Amino acid sequence: MLEGIKVVDLTNLLPGPFATNILAELGAEVIKVERPDGGDPVRHMIPGLYETLNRQKTSVVLDLKDKIDQETLRELLKDSDVLIEGFRPGVMERLGFGKEDVAKLNPELIYCSISGYGQNGPYRDLPGHDLNYLAVAGVLSISGQPNGAPEAAGGIQIADLAASLYATISILSALLNKVRSKAGGVYIDVSLAESALALMAPRIAEFYGRNEPTKSEFMSRGAYGAFLTKDMHYISIACVEEKFWETFCETVGMKEFLLDNLFNSWTKRMENAEIINRKIETIISQKTLAEWLAIFKEVDLPISRVNGINDLSKDPHLKSRNAITGDGNRIQIPFPAKMTGIEEFSRN
Amino acid sequence: MLEGIKVVDLTNLLPGPFATNILAELGAEVIKVERPDGGDPVRHMIPGLYETLNRQKTSVVLDLKDKIDQETLRELLKDSDVLIEGFRPGVMERLGFGKEDVAKLNPELIYCSISGYGQNGPYRDLPGHDLNYLAVAGVLSISGQPNGAPEAAGGIQIADLAASLYATISILSALLNKVRSKAGGVYIDVSLAESALALMAPRIAEFYGRNEPTKSEFMSRGAYGAFLTKDMHYISIACVEEKFWETFCETVGMKEFLLDNLFNSWTKRMENAEIINRKIETIISQKTLAEWLAIFKEVDLPISRVNGINDLSKDPHLKSRNAITGDGNRIQIPFPAKMTGIEEFSRN
Repeated sequence: MLEGIKVVDLTNLLPGPFATNILAELGAEVIKVERPDGGDPVRHMIPGLYETLNRQKTSVVLDLKDKIDQETLRELLKDSDVLIEGFRPGVMERLGFGKEDVAKLNPELIYCSISGYGQNGPYRDLPGHDLNYLAVAGVLSISGQPNGAPEAAGGIQIADLAASLYATISILSALLNKVRSKAGGVYIDVSLAESALALMAPRIAEFYGRNEPTKSEFMSRGAYGAFLTKDMHYISIACVEEKFWETFCETVGMKEFLLDNLFNSWTKRMENAEIINRKIETIISQKTLAEWLAIFKEVDLPISRVNGINDLSKDPHLKSRNAITGDGNRIQIPFPAKMTGIEEFSRN
Repeated sequence: MLEGIKVVDLTNLLPGPFATNILAELGAEVIKVERPDGGDPVRHMIPGLYETLNRQKTSVVLDLKDKIDQETLRELLKDSDVLIEGFRPGVMERLGFGKEDVAKLNPELIYCSISGYGQNGPYRDLPGHDLNYLAVAGVLSISGQPNGAPEAAGGIQIADLAASLYATISILSALLNKVRSKAGGVYIDVSLAESALALMAPRIAEFYGRNEPTKSEFMSRGAYGAFLTKDMHYISIACVEEKFWETFCETVGMKEFLLDNLFNSWTKRMENAEIINRKIETIISQKTLAEWLAIFKEVDLPISRVNGINDLSKDPHLKSRNAITGDGNRIQIPFPAKMTGIEEFSRN
């Protein structure tokens, strides 16, 4: 898709490299610039992580404080479509590569900065991790157990990855705009905190729409969660809607719950989620995962197995979708959407 | 950015509308097609949610089972750039709007389907909620407390929103490809489960790179979490790196931890996270949030306040960044990246 688009990538660690990895997977040429003293620190953190985040990129070593290497970077930028950097705000200016400097070299360039809190404002210079950005964005306040403290319990780096995806969307829009309207270069300021905040928008609307519920009122869910089977696997159950709740109760032998006023609406099932979920826990523990999956296969219910990371490459569906490449401990996840050109699907 | 691009949106609920909302915010014309019997079900679920997800779109009512309305949709599609739909796989074909049918009407169209598990494979016809997709993608297995069961504890709808963002990225790439290479239409198959799986890629690499740790080994973090202050606010602390750990211990009076072998590496601080975090809990509870923020302001540490949803529009940084529009219980979150054209920033 993006063949012929040239991206210069000065980023390290997670958010920037994850974004340019998407661009590379879509066909762009990504030149990853690494510093002389060991390169991207992620190389030395966890084996395999560098490779996952930077496969399909060309790596060059440049010392951005060295005059000759700066000149090399300048030459590279003259001939590129996109520059992406993830230093703390102010660093690029000090190196002589602020947006004004770079615009003089290449007035057509799309220049994207990714930082924790953005290029201005009172938190601009603060360091941070995913947890801190989620905290500022309000995500942390509704994370963890409904009755418990805020917790970084989402499993993945939500703010980091949200920023990667919003940076990618911004870069692609700017490139498209350039081709369509002959517009010049664009400077893009992506903040991790604000990217997480953008993903909070539906919850914010829900919070005010439901008259500012407490965390427990807001996040409790009846007939919703992961439940342990007899053979010590987990199964995920998300029977929120009336029809799924009814089918579920009938299928697992909880018909008496359908006659009880405590559970006859979505709101009531949230309020009394603990009673419901404790009952489901007891029931689910009485059969194996395979037995339950066979039972639920006969009805239309939002229920699925809970895969551990080790299970992913064995999952029959993910396998049939080619959602994973490689094998053993070297698996990789390709770009998740499947795109087919009209020539291809019209031929069949 | 996307002015002049016309999007026909047949989606309901969260993932599709969140994607087209991004396209609308970037300037595209989005025509939201709603069914006659009450329209998008989200209108009747939570007050305000429909408005958040569908602001800046034009809404038209069409009965997709009615011959005359089908003809209206066909006319609309002939003149559009993008079609996006979120029905269960097979529905569009039955209505006469499968990708082959639509390609005959408009061979240039970018046609994007968003579904839970994608357009083929054994799980294709299963219903699901965010929880189920996170379960299949392996995210759930590392969510919740490090020593506890898998839990939907991330606060936001990660799989739903990941699919929105990957759908947007795919559509923009296909549009860009079309303009650049005069290619024809493209069919895009986005799956919620696989979008969540894509965000798991860094954790998958880490899991194998660290020799398949248990959940507790994998997800425990020392000097990392939300801690309660004396005045009952939370503060987020993420002092993972050596230098931050040292500065933190010196700043809060935990110097004795720096001399202890139990805590002298990142791995050891993960193993002994509970001891560290319990100590931090005691210390943080002794001063107010304002006192702690003043203390941490003097040093360079990844520490931030934990905003509740009610706090967001009062946050000084988010305010200065214009990261929130509207006020009171009508706040909205605009597209999170700030884009400035070269004409604008070169003028200053």
